[in-house]
Order: sequence, then structure tokens, then C-alpha cells
Amino acid sequence: MSERRIGFIGTGIMGAPLVGHLLRGGCRVTVHSRTRAKAEPLLVQGATWADTPAGAAAEIDVLFVMVTDTPDVEQVLFGENGAAAVLPRGTVVVDLSTISPSGTRSIAARLAEQGVDFLDAPVTGGDVGARNATLTILVGGRAEAFDRVRPLLEQLGRRIVHVGPSGAGQALKACNQVLCAVNLMGVCEALLLARSAGIAPEVLIDALSAGAGGSWALANYGPRMAAGDMAPGFMVKLQQKDLRIVQEAGQAAGVVMPATALAQQMFRSVEARPGGGELGTQAMITAYRHLCGNGDEQPTRPSHRT
Amino acid sequence: MSERRIGFIGTGIMGAPLVGHLLRGGCRVTVHSRTRAKAEPLLVQGATWADTPAGAAAEIDVLFVMVTDTPDVEQVLFGENGAAAVLPRGTVVVDLSTISPSGTRSIAARLAEQGVDFLDAPVTGGDVGARNATLTILVGGRAEAFDRVRPLLEQLGRRIVHVGPSGAGQALKACNQVLCAVNLMGVCEALLLARSAGIAPEVLIDALSAGAGGSWALANYGPRMAAGDMAPGFMVKLQQKDLRIVQEAGQAAGVVMPATALAQQMFRSVEARPGGGELGTQAMITAYRHLCGNGDEQPTRPSHRT
Repeated sequence: MSERRIGFIGTGIMGAPLVGHLLRGGCRVTVHSRTRAKAEPLLVQGATWADTPAGAAAEIDVLFVMVTDTPDVEQVLFGENGAAAVLPRGTVVVDLSTISPSGTRSIAARLAEQGVDFLDAPVTGGDVGARNATLTILVGGRAEAFDRVRPLLEQLGRRIVHVGPSGAGQALKACNQVLCAVNLMGVCEALLLARSAGIAPEVLIDALSAGAGGSWALANYGPRMAAGDMAPGFMVKLQQKDLRIVQEAGQAAGVVMPATALAQQMFRSVEARPGGGELGTQAMITAYRHLCGNGDEQPTRPSHRT
Repeated sequence: MSERRIGFIGTGIMGAPLVGHLLRGGCRVTVHSRTRAKAEPLLVQGATWADTPAGAAAEIDVLFVMVTDTPDVEQVLFGENGAAAVLPRGTVVVDLSTISPSGTRSIAARLAEQGVDFLDAPVTGGDVGARNATLTILVGGRAEAFDRVRPLLEQLGRRIVHVGPSGAGQALKACNQVLCAVNLMGVCEALLLARSAGIAPEVLIDALSAGAGGSWALANYGPRMAAGDMAPGFMVKLQQKDLRIVQEAGQAAGVVMPATALAQQMFRSVEARPGGGELGTQAMITAYRHLCGNGDEQPTRPSHRT
């Protein structure tokens, strides 16, 4: 079956480049976003504008949603002028947002009543991955629906994984966020310990990245911390939203995650300062600097004390 | 200058294969170890046995030491029949052990008085790296001494880094141990969260290792945790020894490391059970299982609760 008529709700930093890939792949795409200005470049590329979520969901085969949180997904589907009211039986909704696994299962059950499949399909790989179509996409939901939309997902990402039933994609994304948050603490503590010994961050990153202490966080966030570059990347406030989802899932299942909880507190310390939530997650190093009593100096300028 | 007459003290799991590399590289090696039996295979390969540390240090150019902790290094150098008493002026001592940076500086100062260089040269890469000569070696001490022994170190490892002055190699090794310990908590918490959602560990490891949550710990310890394989690798009790060194260095410098401290506590929980200290560090997952109230079941057998 060819799925060429696409609705796409949410054309922000992540959504917009994905719509571009679909357009270049030959799809007819109707877009809706809270802020029309963000969609304008896509209209130039051939997308059609819809004033409401329902407008983006009319006469389509597949509806993509790429918004922030569980209530946002519920709003565009079931709120005023929501998409669900007009989705034809047999449509597949692909939710690229990172939201709660349990909320996902509720939404999927509600849409199943009208014969619509809801796949959770959160992504990892960031804005760079979205632009270069190198995302990993973690999919939960019925295998038949997954098979139908897989060719579309392959236009958006490099690694497409059907994890399991509804919610499983979000559950695995939550695990990914645990890893990202905890690994980041290791990078901060190692860089600060190195600095106290007069070891430049570049020396640490270069010597240790390929070894047993290596991580994506060290190789990618270490240099930004060293350079004092706190631009997002991935905003602290979105990481915190994801960690709330992690804790909700952990609480429901009785999974004790003390390191993840500690990472949340470190990010909370970043958020406690004006504009902190809009910094990239590598700004965790600034919270550590304050903990170590040197919040006013550059965090990673080596001082030779040996 | 050709440095061909070698003394080597400590022929355990790490030291023995390194002596083998030196012998194959054409060096004359005199070995001493607490347990002579561990050195026997090396004697067959051409090494000479010495009954005491002093015996291994006579008429040599370079003395390698590969023992466990700071007091062990002090003992073989300055204890009864210690090596220091017989080391000729101009000798270089290369300490491959992982010990305290401050202890290292004290030893270096003491040996400098008799015209002997002491290089700290802790390694990372484990027993596999020792056998395959793929270790990373992190060296602290005078550049002239480093340059002299570099050809020997290149027989032992793949990546030889002169980090800085005396103690800098140990300081960077401490940073590496911070990364290893903290990353391991991320792996444990992510695997347990995945399991609670019915996601098999293999699916998580396969889907997330190449992404933003990826780490050496996930790729290498994740599968062992999944298989219930708790064999060392790197023993919990040695990791704990290294984390004590980390905390000593952190305390001296005013570096606050809450995640590292939490990792120490998790390892302490592993050590609290009989034989726990001799397990591999991936056994941290068993402490988490007990925290989550399911200490008696297999940690990573997925249960489909979705």
C-alpha cells in the first residue's frame, strides 16, 4: 500500500526538517503548527497549511505528530478542532513526540475504538539527526501498522526499531534518557576532578574516549563543556520533562533509580537560575561548579596545581 | 639509549602478559612476585626469577611495578629487601599500578633524592588489553624519563599518553574510574526500567548503543548483565580501591562527586554479600535488583507487563 497523503502536526526544530524529507520523498504533506511562521519555509517547499489539527488530518493516510508532552498530543488529537474527530478508519497516527508510555497506551486504546492505529515512535539523535535523516526511531504498536509506515520512517531516520506493543517505543526512549542523564554526571565529575589536577579537558577527552570510560556524552558534550558552549542541542527543560516520564514509569513498575534521581536534581539546579531551562543539557557542569564553590569561574580552564 | 635490562615486580593477571611482551621484544627481564607460582610460565619463556624486590632491581635500566595499592608499591620499593636500596642512579621506575596521586608524588620525591625517576603509568584496558598489548597507558612524570621508556611502553600498549608531571597519570586514571563507575549505574537503571516494560536487554543494547545514550559500559557490561555473567573482568574490590583513591583526590581538591559516591555505595552493597568483592563490576546490577525487591530472580529476564 502506498501511503503518500500525509498530515504533520508540529513543525518545530525537530518536525520541520522531517517534513522536508517527506516532501522530497514525493509525499503530499499538510502541516499544522501552533506558530504558522515556523511552517512557512515548508509551504515554500510545497507543503499545504491547515489552520487546525483537524485540517491536517482530513483525507490523509498517515498523520505524524511531533509536539512536546503528553497533554500536547492529547490536545491536538482530542482537543478543540482535534484531529481524531476527522481521522478515517484505517489511518495510522505516528507520534514522534517523547511522552509517557502509559499516556500512550490510553491514547492508542481510545483511537483503536474508531479503527485508527496509534504508533509511539519517539526519536533519538537530536536536531542534527532530524536534519540529516539519521535518527533512531523507537516504535511501539501493532506490527501491521508498523509495516505500513516503515517506508515513511525510513525517509526520516537511519535506524528504525519495532520495540514491541503500544508504549514500548516510549519505554525504550525513557531508558535512553536515563543513560544520557547519568552518563552526563560522569562527564561532569571526571572533568572537574581532572581540572583540579591541572589536566586540560581536551587531554581527558582525547585519552579516555576510546576506552572503558568512553561514552557518547563524553565525546560530544565534553568538548562543549570545555569550550563553555551551553547552547542547546537538547534543552535542560526538555530533558527534565523526559526524566519526569522516566520517574512516572519507574514508580509504576517499582524500579528504583537513584542515579537518575540525582541527575534530575542536578538539572533542577541548572533550572533554578534565570534561563537555565533553555540551556543545553551540558550545562549540568554549571550546577557542579556551584556545588564545588567555584560557580563564578570558567568550569574547565585548567589550573596547574600539581 | 637502549633500555634492555628490565626488572618487573608483580606478575599477576595484568603483569604476567606484559612481561611476555617485553621478553618477545628482546628484553632481559628479571621478575619478582609475591607468589612464585604465578611467575613460573614466564621463567619458561626466558625470564629470570628473583626472590626479593631488591633482587629484581639489581643491574637494570628500568624497573616496572604492577601491584595493587599505594602501600604495596611503597613496600616493594622501601620495605624489607626493597628495590630502592639497590636502584642505581639514572634508573627509571615505571609504576603501572593504580595508586593515589599524592602517594605517587611522595614516592617520586623520595626516589628523586637518589637520582631515580619514578613515572606513574596506570593502565586502562583490562586483562584483555594486557594480553593483546592494546592498553592505554597514562603517564605522569618528567618528560626526559618518559621519552626514555616510551619504546618499552609501546611494546605494552597501543595508546601511550604523557599526561603531565608526577601524579598526573594517576589523576587521569582516577577520572577514568569515575566515568566507568557512573556509566555503569546508567546501564543498570536503564536495563531494569526496560525489563519492567517487557523490553529484552538485547533490544535495548542493540537499539541504543550507537546513539546518545551509548557507552563502553553499555556495549560491554550490558550483555554480561543480561546473561547473568558476573565473572571478572575487573573485580568490584579493585574498583572500590580505585574509588577510594578518587575520593581522596576529590577531598583534597574540593571536588564534589555525588554520582561517584552513589556508585561506591552500590558497589558496597555488592561487597556486603559473601564473595561479592571478587565479582566483576557488572555485578552492580545485583545490588540494584535487591533495591528493587527482586533480588532472588534473574535480573534481566524480560517479563511482558505491557
